[in-house]
Amino acid sequence: MTQSYTNYILHLADNALILGQRNAEWCGHGPVLEQDIAITNISLDLIGQARSLYQYAAELKGNGATEDSLAFLRTEREFKNCLLAEQPNGDWAQTILRQFFVSTFQFYLYQSLLTHSDSTLAAIAEKSLKEVRYHLRWGSEWVIRLGDGTEESARRMNKAVSELWCYTGEFFVPADYETAAGSDPAGLKDAFYSKVREVFTQASLAVPENVFMHTGGKNGMHTEHLGFILSDLQYMQRAYPGCEW
Amino acid sequence: MTQSYTNYILHLADNALILGQRNAEWCGHGPVLEQDIAITNISLDLIGQARSLYQYAAELKGNGATEDSLAFLRTEREFKNCLLAEQPNGDWAQTILRQFFVSTFQFYLYQSLLTHSDSTLAAIAEKSLKEVRYHLRWGSEWVIRLGDGTEESARRMNKAVSELWCYTGEFFVPADYETAAGSDPAGLKDAFYSKVREVFTQASLAVPENVFMHTGGKNGMHTEHLGFILSDLQYMQRAYPGCEW
Repeated sequence: MTQSYTNYILHLADNALILGQRNAEWCGHGPVLEQDIAITNISLDLIGQARSLYQYAAELKGNGATEDSLAFLRTEREFKNCLLAEQPNGDWAQTILRQFFVSTFQFYLYQSLLTHSDSTLAAIAEKSLKEVRYHLRWGSEWVIRLGDGTEESARRMNKAVSELWCYTGEFFVPADYETAAGSDPAGLKDAFYSKVREVFTQASLAVPENVFMHTGGKNGMHTEHLGFILSDLQYMQRAYPGCEW
Repeated sequence: MTQSYTNYILHLADNALILGQRNAEWCGHGPVLEQDIAITNISLDLIGQARSLYQYAAELKGNGATEDSLAFLRTEREFKNCLLAEQPNGDWAQTILRQFFVSTFQFYLYQSLLTHSDSTLAAIAEKSLKEVRYHLRWGSEWVIRLGDGTEESARRMNKAVSELWCYTGEFFVPADYETAAGSDPAGLKDAFYSKVREVFTQASLAVPENVFMHTGGKNGMHTEHLGFILSDLQYMQRAYPGCEW
């Protein structure tokens, strides 16, 4: 396997790890206990997906790479997650909307990977899809509940849309390693926005138009937020090199 | 010089560094440009004081210690700052009040150190006092402006008082290394609360009574916040060991 293909696997892993880390910031701070546990469980699912992908990437990479070295010892510019995954939690509405967007994308992406010629990747996608299907249902229900809820919840959800919409376009602009891996994210664009439109309609949310879309994360050009995430995420391994649980 | 005396110098340095780091989080986010620059300048003063103290502590410690190793390579339990310094910025009122409390304490402390038998420490105190005198005036003016300002600013300042008051008691509970260094923080208590009462009266703020006072920071037992501060503060040195600017 080539370096480029390993980068593709890392890109998938980074999306899951960084969003999982973000969601985990809610642990113990959720609005109600049930949802505190729900978002933390989604974190665990995402970090579990990240682990499977990092383990596979480490195998492809060789040279002593491990899931831990890939998660904890790469620098900001080496991370390949989409910008959306690293955006701040904001309030509950913003966290929900970020999760809904990512889950929608992952749902179509992992479906398309079920038939990928690399059977290891196809198997990870199949296992992940079971979890993502639940995340998508949970996220959709919350978007509808908040968007079509009280004046306050609708105001917050509309604010979240205006904060995050501009990061949805990056999903569909293929990085070189995606194209080389036979992945065609642009082909998922219609399905993604059609699903979003369906949920937004039920949620009485307007779909923004003509929004400038930010890109860069897939190629290591991140917003200011990723550095702070990595500072927290990597501190133990940086402070105690080689430490194990 | 003993280990205990070095710990005393580190305690003084940690107070300045951690508050300086906290204030620096405002850089580029201040409510108006002039005050963004003011709080950032106070950060620079505090970090400058921390540097002088760390340089001196490194000299006392020997064994290759440097100002950088003391600031960037000690762990949470080794930091000896008061809990107040590490509390979150909150809103502008909370940041102001934290600064006012620390500056008031530093003002009386550094005054008392002018006649300390260690002439190096006395010289650092003298240099720092010039800056702290300005910080105290600036902080007092802001406490009065906000406490005696609009309904909203008074509400926020009262909230800040209820958040932070419980951390003021720690200043006056001497750690072993303070007593051993001939420092008597308990002797500064009356001057501190008298100054606070004077400013609170002008600010139309009530002085809380019978508040349980938290302690522990001086002996390395910190609130959850310090770990996150160190993750950011130490990341460069942890990720690139030995790096220099």
